[in-house]
Amino acid sequence: MWRLPVSVLLGTKVHSVTQHLLSGTANLQCCWWRTVRGTHTGYMSMGIRKVEAPDAEHLIRVQWEDGSESHYPCVWLRDNCQCPQCFLHSAKARKLLFEDLDVDIVAKEITLTDRKKVSITWPDEHTSEYEAEWLKKRCFSEAARAEMREDLFLPGHEYWGSDLQLPKMPFEEIMYDDESAYKWLCTLKKTGVVLLTGAAARQGELVKLGHRIGFLRLTFYGPTWQVQDKADANNVAYTTEKLCFHTDYPVLQHPPGVQLLHCIKQTATGGESEIVDGFHAANKLKQQNPQAYQILTSTAVDYTDVGVDYCDFAVQGKQRIIDVDYKGQVVRINFNNATRDTVFDIPAEEVRPFYAALKEFNDLLNSKEHKFTYKLKPGDIVTFDNWRVLHGRKGYPPGSEVIRHLEGAYADWDVVMSRLRRLRKRVLNRD
Amino acid sequence: MWRLPVSVLLGTKVHSVTQHLLSGTANLQCCWWRTVRGTHTGYMSMGIRKVEAPDAEHLIRVQWEDGSESHYPCVWLRDNCQCPQCFLHSAKARKLLFEDLDVDIVAKEITLTDRKKVSITWPDEHTSEYEAEWLKKRCFSEAARAEMREDLFLPGHEYWGSDLQLPKMPFEEIMYDDESAYKWLCTLKKTGVVLLTGAAARQGELVKLGHRIGFLRLTFYGPTWQVQDKADANNVAYTTEKLCFHTDYPVLQHPPGVQLLHCIKQTATGGESEIVDGFHAANKLKQQNPQAYQILTSTAVDYTDVGVDYCDFAVQGKQRIIDVDYKGQVVRINFNNATRDTVFDIPAEEVRPFYAALKEFNDLLNSKEHKFTYKLKPGDIVTFDNWRVLHGRKGYPPGSEVIRHLEGAYADWDVVMSRLRRLRKRVLNRD
Repeated sequence: MWRLPVSVLLGTKVHSVTQHLLSGTANLQCCWWRTVRGTHTGYMSMGIRKVEAPDAEHLIRVQWEDGSESHYPCVWLRDNCQCPQCFLHSAKARKLLFEDLDVDIVAKEITLTDRKKVSITWPDEHTSEYEAEWLKKRCFSEAARAEMREDLFLPGHEYWGSDLQLPKMPFEEIMYDDESAYKWLCTLKKTGVVLLTGAAARQGELVKLGHRIGFLRLTFYGPTWQVQDKADANNVAYTTEKLCFHTDYPVLQHPPGVQLLHCIKQTATGGESEIVDGFHAANKLKQQNPQAYQILTSTAVDYTDVGVDYCDFAVQGKQRIIDVDYKGQVVRINFNNATRDTVFDIPAEEVRPFYAALKEFNDLLNSKEHKFTYKLKPGDIVTFDNWRVLHGRKGYPPGSEVIRHLEGAYADWDVVMSRLRRLRKRVLNRD
Repeated sequence: MWRLPVSVLLGTKVHSVTQHLLSGTANLQCCWWRTVRGTHTGYMSMGIRKVEAPDAEHLIRVQWEDGSESHYPCVWLRDNCQCPQCFLHSAKARKLLFEDLDVDIVAKEITLTDRKKVSITWPDEHTSEYEAEWLKKRCFSEAARAEMREDLFLPGHEYWGSDLQLPKMPFEEIMYDDESAYKWLCTLKKTGVVLLTGAAARQGELVKLGHRIGFLRLTFYGPTWQVQDKADANNVAYTTEKLCFHTDYPVLQHPPGVQLLHCIKQTATGGESEIVDGFHAANKLKQQNPQAYQILTSTAVDYTDVGVDYCDFAVQGKQRIIDVDYKGQVVRINFNNATRDTVFDIPAEEVRPFYAALKEFNDLLNSKEHKFTYKLKPGDIVTFDNWRVLHGRKGYPPGSEVIRHLEGAYADWDVVMSRLRRLRKRVLNRD
């Protein structure tokens, strides 16, 4: 199914990567195959040597054929009984009510059948059965959980700078070939950007792409939106002027995770696109200027967006420029200078230090080392992680006619990752 | 425009409220009028007595006619120049590029005109003008910022328990009368639940309600979804069984903020609805069992949802049961026992303490003191805050026919709050 060599399609130069990955094109390819093949084949054959419930402990111990051990808390086992009374298999969802769960439960009797199945009888005579493979996947060890996390969320990033070799794939191929579509979404998740080439140069291709994923995200700018010079523009993007690095829609509580920009018409002069890996720059800032990083990860910035488009709107939001989760991990960049509000809800004495910190970050984004410049051609669709990759464009000459026209759309990461998992299942023929 | 007395429409009993609010029906009414009238009329007439730029400070001081003072950092003033070169008025958005802003800027010359307008000339001779009213609104004092926050986000909650008097409003009225629609959304934000009565008992009313707000949130379950007993149910809600307290869709990174449930057909026996104020219960838990609260605000719980509906899907997510923002404020409850995954990504020794903590919280939710029971009638639409209010229903007898049918839909808080602000502007005729 590969119409081009993998090294061309995925020629991203990798700077700094997750623990498991090395640098260079060959390794991105390697990473891709690792993901394709999955790492769960080991679950299939591992049998159980022994299972026991130590007295006075609220867990059972499983000893595997390779000598390793897993511990499973009894309350978790009872909670996850897979019998039809406790679990609705058509919905793959728990029926057992939380109210009916005894958090201090212990097993009354445990049986190991054929090294493949553990049966537990509970004090009220209810019986639960667990397959060895099911248990192995859900082992509570740090290593097993890390593997499961990798499998479910593909959390690693491959950072890049100005020497990015933009990953490219033919639009037609990802539309009709599942393996290619899966590769597209894996690369989008890991690298943050993929260029799809060869779409028709007319409106409507993004709607098709939306159906390929599942569905697009509707916003106040409509199901898709037209980036071109407009009279009385309700957004700075709808002018001919330069747009500095920004993420789209930080005014929303949940900014769109993925952005799709389809070039329908391109100006001869100007209009070049720029992108930068915001996570890479945020990590650099953290090293170089921890105080600026601290300010940008702790200051709520007001955003505003008021106007009329799909319907009339008056949106207000607060976001941190560098958004971290409760564990301190960078999860999103929220920076759009145009929609940053005139209202600024911090004490006056914190204002100048904030601007200084943002300047440090903005300088990093715009440094020659980090930013990557390219020019979209009609039929190109750039797909990128709007939580991570900031984008901008150079200005171009205004005129009486529309000389540059992009169609844009958004999708949520939940929808994109859901499609990725479904495609993987189909491509690899595994659960 | 009021067809029913306010005390009937908004008869919510208030337990514990924000600093500004007292208890009882009369005060909710008072709060409502406070919100309707706004608190910004004071901005209109306040003139400036004096404006100065102290040497060696990067701010200007404004002395108001009442003797009070506001300080504005120069960099913020320059950043928010409202001239057409720096600000795109058709989009109400900043044009000035961040790169072009000098964070160490100071004013070269300041002029006060007619006590109503401050003009600043900057070192490069660029001139900015600021209206007194514009400046007053954006004063950096804690009090002014709190007022602006209240105005933009209505952050206060009116907590309730089992003695809730469910706020009710006629569906027709909120559809056609802006003042009523505004009141509906204000109450939805503050109290978390409003029952709309008298809709037609057929599918499609929620789509109309969606247009009234702006647009609904599409999910894998479709634009709207039918809650009734289904063969091979892909969700536990699509059975006749009891549903314990839950929030919808915690598997999504951004669960729907508002839920709309329209009763089309109701069973004679069973099927009663239950709701509980999750924020109120979370606050109780924090007081009664800080350790359990700490566990539920810091443990990422895995959720899963796999199936086929609007399209095929395989969604995975991690949420904390009691979700707090980076300042430690409770912002969302994420609890759905059915879609809580069998995968649990925490060390084995933390499992039993987690279940014990969740039991404490679940007991509070289900206590007689907290839960409120009612039964929907055909034509009723319950609208509620899905981030705050947990809902459930009692089971009902299965049969060969559909004897109970609700239509459901979701909306995002961004969309609902946007409509609230637009309605307020129209009702109060103010910016």
